[in-house]
Parts: sequence; structure tokens; C-alpha cells
Amino acid sequence: MLILNKKDIIQHVDLNKNLIPIIEEAFISLSKGLVMMPPIMRIDIEKYHGESDVKAAYVEGLDSFAIKIASGFFDNPKLGLPSSNGLMVLLDSKTGVIKSVLLDEGYLTDTRTAIAGAIATKYLSNQNANSVGIIGAGIQARLQLQAIMLVRKINKVIVWSRDKIKANQFIKSFKDLDLDLDLDLHVASSCNELASLSEIIVTTTPSKKPLLEFDWIKKGTHITAMGSDAEQKNELDPHILKHCDQYVPDNQLQTSVLGELHHALKQNIISSKEKFNELGDIINDPSLGRKNKEDITICDLTGTGVQDTAIARFAYNLCKTNNLGINI
Amino acid sequence: MLILNKKDIIQHVDLNKNLIPIIEEAFISLSKGLVMMPPIMRIDIEKYHGESDVKAAYVEGLDSFAIKIASGFFDNPKLGLPSSNGLMVLLDSKTGVIKSVLLDEGYLTDTRTAIAGAIATKYLSNQNANSVGIIGAGIQARLQLQAIMLVRKINKVIVWSRDKIKANQFIKSFKDLDLDLDLDLHVASSCNELASLSEIIVTTTPSKKPLLEFDWIKKGTHITAMGSDAEQKNELDPHILKHCDQYVPDNQLQTSVLGELHHALKQNIISSKEKFNELGDIINDPSLGRKNKEDITICDLTGTGVQDTAIARFAYNLCKTNNLGINI
Repeated sequence: MLILNKKDIIQHVDLNKNLIPIIEEAFISLSKGLVMMPPIMRIDIEKYHGESDVKAAYVEGLDSFAIKIASGFFDNPKLGLPSSNGLMVLLDSKTGVIKSVLLDEGYLTDTRTAIAGAIATKYLSNQNANSVGIIGAGIQARLQLQAIMLVRKINKVIVWSRDKIKANQFIKSFKDLDLDLDLDLHVASSCNELASLSEIIVTTTPSKKPLLEFDWIKKGTHITAMGSDAEQKNELDPHILKHCDQYVPDNQLQTSVLGELHHALKQNIISSKEKFNELGDIINDPSLGRKNKEDITICDLTGTGVQDTAIARFAYNLCKTNNLGINI
Repeated sequence: MLILNKKDIIQHVDLNKNLIPIIEEAFISLSKGLVMMPPIMRIDIEKYHGESDVKAAYVEGLDSFAIKIASGFFDNPKLGLPSSNGLMVLLDSKTGVIKSVLLDEGYLTDTRTAIAGAIATKYLSNQNANSVGIIGAGIQARLQLQAIMLVRKINKVIVWSRDKIKANQFIKSFKDLDLDLDLDLHVASSCNELASLSEIIVTTTPSKKPLLEFDWIKKGTHITAMGSDAEQKNELDPHILKHCDQYVPDNQLQTSVLGELHHALKQNIISSKEKFNELGDIINDPSLGRKNKEDITICDLTGTGVQDTAIARFAYNLCKTNNLGINI
């Protein structure tokens, strides 16, 4: 049994193009019905504004599967601790024997989430889209931007955050990354302004009220909504889902209860009978993706256990090959 | 973060009386509504006759909580491996920071399950009951018997297993434990015979068809049904639940979907409106337990996350105090 810590994992897994086919394959398996993925388990600790989620997925034919714990404790920054934490456990599919505990502290979750954003952008945004609006200024804001830059040539970035200081810090910290890019970065004064300047929009907040309205969205825009992963979270006015040209869930079963779709269903704006192509369907057959240059597309990402299984297997194999970690 | 392995844990946690109040307190918290315990997550891997369950529970006021993975892969013995496996993760309730990974390989689950059997027997069986019938011949058969002996003076043990060789092996291995006891152990040829000789019965099998019928049960018998922990598992004819004098679930929400109660509800033998005192209610107020010497009582154990949190905290504290484990 191999114990891997974050330091081990970071050495071999970072946000790069190689991860895209790994996560794409996971989404394809999911949409083809080859995955046994139970509903997410959630432990809410309201007193401390904390929650721990457990996700898991077994993919037919794979020799291992992951069970992942991801925590978000939103008072942690006051204590000088990161909000996110977690680990992944990799089990042998044939025997249930634990192959590895990956003490990644949420790093692999952050990474596979960003890669899903890259994949959504790759299949749904216009090829020549070069402006990105990022709503939110946390870790995923930065990672989603980096991930999009793996698949599109971006030269303009617009950021909006409820806290303007954080938006400015975000821009500064992104410049500090020194990615040797010719980027025009600036802070928008409103989400409306942001939308008017962006061909791709990513929402990365834990907002409980819509931040974007349909009227603000330019023709041809692609939106990745990745902040909403719980019943009460909601970043898009549900009418955007109704009036857009294409709505794509990572997993419709999940987005119906946790994602943006949940709110559209609850308000009877979309019928629960409607069946959408999932991200995996489009990866498998890209002709199902964006049809016209003018289309408004949405990808609703709630985060799936199958992404965790894919990245845990990838990280484990690389670390093992490189003799990292502690054998117990 | 402290990594504890089974060897560390076994040094300080074994099946003894000290664990009874620890698990009793857990059940009391559960029945008082002080526990946030999400539904069990299950990953079924039918191809390999395997399943992994995830259980978790946060108890109000406690500074840590556990998330537990327990696997059962029933072809493992053919490969020379134990069927059961698993680990527990202990998280800080205030920050979500992982305090410990307990690589117990299912040992703590086995132990807290056996202790629940001791508790059921303590509150529900007659004080002077001295004969135990054990249905099944696996690990829990042995542990349940040992646990009952912590709370009742047993001098007669009757064992039944579908596989008579296993029943004989069970008796031999129990004798080999050399517990210095004056015990009359023998194999029954049927569950009917077993019931006719037992004042306490424990069912410990993964049976999908009832093994015990109501007519076979003597007046005054207490039955602990602990094998059924999944929708399809069923050890007692549902009429036993209907006609017994007292039915006690560990957690009615769980036994309604996974335990013996599930089958009684499904067959409309018991109404889903009926509310039963749970084990924790009876621990909290023992006058709610057995009323008369002649009563037939049943305790339906499906295994609860709150037991896992209790035993993980107990094991962690003892191992930490004794400087065991690896700090990462």
C-alpha cells in the first residue's frame, strides 16, 4: 500500500495538456454508461461552515477505482488555513484491497476540475475565441484560466469578483506566475460589463444567487458554470439555460440536483423530461457540440467521481513508476 | 497527520468491556438527533462480487468525525485474501483537516459491530440467558459470540452454518482461542433446532432468504440480526418482526432500506408509519427495553457511521497517546 503526499503528486501531475485525454476518456465512459457512480455523499457541519463530500466511481474494465473525500471549510482562511482539503483512496477493482492513499489535500480535485473546464471550452467555444471573463477570484478562477489557455489562444482576460481587492490580487498573482504571455488583464466593474467583453465566461463562485442574466450574454459566447456543486448554489439565471442554444451537463443526474439545471427545473423553466447530451457524448462525437458561430453554449460542471478515479489512477501510476511515496 | 496501521490499532483496541460505553454513547447521540449521518454510499462491482460502502457521521460537539470505507469482496478467499478490507479517515470537525488515516483493514468495523451486538444483548436479552445460537460461521460469528460473553454468562453455544464443515471449524477455532471457559459448544443440524436450544440468537450471514421462522422462536428469546446491511439481504422471516414483542433498529432510517425491517415494509407486513424505539433510546432509558421474561425481542443492526466515528476517535486517541503510527 502506497502513501503519496501532495509533494510527491505535484512532481508528476500538473495542469498540462497531457491530462486532457485522461479526463476526456473518463467523461466518455460516463456517458456510455460504463461507470458505476453512486450519488455524492455530503456531510454538512453548519456550525463551522464546513462540508465534506465523498465521490466515487468504478469504470468497467479498469483495475482500480477511487473513493475521494473533498472538504471545504469556509472559515479556514481566518485561521490561516486553506478552505479545501481532502484525499483520494485507490482500491483494487477485483479485491477491494487498498492500493494507495493519495494525501493530495484537494490538489487533484482542483486539477481535474480545471481540466474539465478546458475540455468544455475545447468542444463548445468558438475556435478563435480569445477573450475570457472569469467570475470569482479564488483558486479555481486561476486554474480555469490556465486550463482554458491550454486549448484557446487567449489575449484578453476580464475578472470580476464581489470583492474588488481580490480581483486586483488575482490579476497581480496571475502576472506573478510569469507565464511569458502577452495578456491584457483587467477588472470589470460588473458581471454585465464582463459579459459584454468576453467570448468565453467561467463562473467559479459559491454564489447562491444568479450572477449572470441572459440579456447580458453576447451571441457566440460559451459559458462554463463550475461553481455550483450543491443544492443551494446558483450562478446563472435559469433563463440562460432555457434560451441558450446548447446546454451540456457533465452528468445530468448530478446537475439536476446540484448544478445550474437544478434551479431551472425547480422553477419549471425546463422540464425534467428533457434529456441533454452530456459532455462525454460530445467528446465522443464532437459534431454534437457547437453548431454555429453565433450559438450561446453552456457547460454545467458539478464534478464527477469518474474524474477522480481517472486522475487518481494517473497520479498513482506515475508516482509508483518513479518510486515516490511510502510503502506500508 | 497520523497514519496508523492495523498492527498499531490492535495493540490498543480489542474486543473488551471498555468499548461498550463508547459505542453506547454513539447510539444515544444518534437517537437524540445530535448526529449528522448521511445515507450510506455503496459502490457495487458485480463482476467481482465486490462492494465498497462508505459511512460517515458527525456528532455535534465532537472535535473530529470519521468517514469510513469498508469493502467486501466475496471471491477473495479463493485468492487467499480476506473478504473484508477498509480504512477510516478522521477529520477535524472545525477545519476539515485530516487528522489521521487508520489503515485498520476492516478491524475497527468488525469490532464496533460486535460491540453493538453486546449492547443489544445487554439491554434486550434476559439477564440469566446462558445459551447462544449463532447462525453463520464467519468472523462476525466468532466476534458476536465473544461480545455477548462480555455481558452474559454463557455456558452453551449452538452453531449453524449452511456449510457444516465451517460450523465444525468455527467450534474448533473458538476452542483454540483458549478462553478458559466452561462452554458446551455444538453444531445444530438446522436453524429450527438451533432456535429450540437458544435464549439468545445472533444471525451473522449474508443470506438473501429468511433463515428463521416465527414458529421456531421460543418465548423469552432475544435475536440480534446483524447480517443484513443491504437491500437484498434478509435473515428473518418478516412475520417475526410483526409478531415479536419488541423490534429495535439501530437506526430506523437505515433498517427501513437495508435491514430486516426493509422486507417487512416491502411485503406490507409492517406499516411504514410505525415508529420504533431505536437502540440508543433504550440505552438512554433502559425501562424502554425488555418488559417481560417471556418477550421475544429483536435488534436489527445495519451498522451506523456514528459507531465508526466513535471507534475511530477512540483508536486515534489511544494510539496518539502511545506514540504509535507515522506522522506525515
